[in-house]
Amino acid sequence: MASPTPLLKDELDIVIPTIRNLDFLEMWRPFFEQYHLIIVQDGDPSKTIKVPEGFDYELYNRNDINRILGPKANCISFKDSACRCFGYMVSKKKYIFTIDDDCFVATDPSGKKINALEQHIKNLLCPSTPFFFNTLYEPYREGADFVRGYPFSLREGVPTAVSHGLWLNIPDYDAPTQLVKPLERNTRYVDAILTIPKGTLFPMCGMNLAFDRELIGPAMYFGLMGDGQPIGRYDDMWAGWCVKVICDHLGLGVKTGLPYIYHSKASNPFVNLRKEYKGIFWQEDIIPFFQNVVLPKEATTVQKCYIELAKEVKDKLSKIDPYFDKLADAMVTWIESWDELNPAVASNGKA
Amino acid sequence: MASPTPLLKDELDIVIPTIRNLDFLEMWRPFFEQYHLIIVQDGDPSKTIKVPEGFDYELYNRNDINRILGPKANCISFKDSACRCFGYMVSKKKYIFTIDDDCFVATDPSGKKINALEQHIKNLLCPSTPFFFNTLYEPYREGADFVRGYPFSLREGVPTAVSHGLWLNIPDYDAPTQLVKPLERNTRYVDAILTIPKGTLFPMCGMNLAFDRELIGPAMYFGLMGDGQPIGRYDDMWAGWCVKVICDHLGLGVKTGLPYIYHSKASNPFVNLRKEYKGIFWQEDIIPFFQNVVLPKEATTVQKCYIELAKEVKDKLSKIDPYFDKLADAMVTWIESWDELNPAVASNGKA
Repeated sequence: MASPTPLLKDELDIVIPTIRNLDFLEMWRPFFEQYHLIIVQDGDPSKTIKVPEGFDYELYNRNDINRILGPKANCISFKDSACRCFGYMVSKKKYIFTIDDDCFVATDPSGKKINALEQHIKNLLCPSTPFFFNTLYEPYREGADFVRGYPFSLREGVPTAVSHGLWLNIPDYDAPTQLVKPLERNTRYVDAILTIPKGTLFPMCGMNLAFDRELIGPAMYFGLMGDGQPIGRYDDMWAGWCVKVICDHLGLGVKTGLPYIYHSKASNPFVNLRKEYKGIFWQEDIIPFFQNVVLPKEATTVQKCYIELAKEVKDKLSKIDPYFDKLADAMVTWIESWDELNPAVASNGKA
Repeated sequence: MASPTPLLKDELDIVIPTIRNLDFLEMWRPFFEQYHLIIVQDGDPSKTIKVPEGFDYELYNRNDINRILGPKANCISFKDSACRCFGYMVSKKKYIFTIDDDCFVATDPSGKKINALEQHIKNLLCPSTPFFFNTLYEPYREGADFVRGYPFSLREGVPTAVSHGLWLNIPDYDAPTQLVKPLERNTRYVDAILTIPKGTLFPMCGMNLAFDRELIGPAMYFGLMGDGQPIGRYDDMWAGWCVKVICDHLGLGVKTGLPYIYHSKASNPFVNLRKEYKGIFWQEDIIPFFQNVVLPKEATTVQKCYIELAKEVKDKLSKIDPYFDKLADAMVTWIESWDELNPAVASNGKA
């Protein structure tokens, strides 16, 4: 008997950056097999990545990226999972779910396997409430609502652009925390989804993330990391800061919480420290920058917001390190590439 | 064998507003019996309130309030649980826990009885993180930490002024929601504590609430409600808005989440609608007022902040209804009374 058609089957792509065979997909088969996959192969393009039988996919390696983007390919990171954002750009779907290849299906406290993708879709299809905090968390969930004192005019909410999922087992810690707490595992299943309030930044992790490509796609740039760059492991953070500032400006919502995935393998903290250490200093200036940046009223599309942000980065962050000058240029290149590949789907939905 | 001494035994008062015998305390005996209670008797002062044997308490009825405050007693509400804030004022302790007399001990998903007071104390003794969102919630809990990308300079946190607990069974809904969803019960135990970010308001419920009286006490005024006033059921909301704005200004933290209590009895939605309906309109103006109010730099104590806020209320909200003019005056009276009763414990800790 055929499986029932899952939610948004033809409107969502699953983007997976990888350097190895995708055996991890076997465990996800019941949840992913009816969706289309976009695999972004990192590292040596001559290597063959094996994808389990029966999955519908397209695969891009570095040669493909260079061929498709030409000189603009320099905005896509190499030897870093930041390359995944190329998949967001070539997708033609409204929604993206991206997951790392060391993430497996988690179980909820009742022992049931969690369909992470289904929960992300539910999060994205349901409004967000960034202007006032609801103490019973997601007000639109079954068995919950807005509590006494929540203004009625805010109960319609705003469209949700991002759904940020969490991780059981190996938590997403930085290198210093990994070094200090090598044995810490996340075993706490928190049964909550919540909107991150307007004006508040958060550390967005790219391991288990979904978003509405039409609403926020052009801001989901994972920056310049890895080969030839002074930092790594800040790709998703960078995207998260940009995305949150633009969502706040455009009146879009960002949710975090459910769903959980099971993160199987801690990366090497020594390697991570080498990738991160400049970021650890820089973020002390970057965070206040994003907390204070103001986008002009005329910036009414994601692209316009992002170009404004690139200008501000060049203007205010280049003094930290010449890297930010290069990054600001890459942000512009990213938008140019996005618009070339997506001529008919500017963020206002018009050609 | 004597019970072990509980946390902060001599530094915390439990404040209970009531109109009936306090049989509900029997269920709380193992958790409350070593603490001192301040009972604020609402309604007819000639009625005798029975307190179960063995509790250490002081009780104030309306006659006591009038005797102690004289003409300033008009800032304390009558025939409304808002009268509880009188208990905050007469306490000489550093911490307050306040609970409604229809709240019972809840159980966690493992079936264990929840010591709500102990969890509140843990929340208050542990810092808050209002400047950046941590996706794994409370970073100081066992088994959790700050995630990758959380700025190191913000990991010390700030002092926690308020711990806002939640409710299983009857959720804290407004009258319209009660009317629409008469059978809804909260059965979702969310195992989380989180800091409400700076700049974000929340609906603070007075049913299950703890705070640091030295840090924020003078802002915990529950306003003018009940007898002779045009609204009710906005006492805790009003306090919450004022408290949050002042905490944000002074760099103090507000936590919400655990602990849960079991809320046994839904109040009458028709009666509630009568009390609330003006508030439902007014809050549409009040919320933007609190979202935009700016306290002057010179306001460095809670009292100074509160007096400034009273001025702003008079200035900006009186045009909604003359009630706010009266409320602004009562806010000033409240601070005068607080300082008379607490001459040596101004919020800066100096006489």
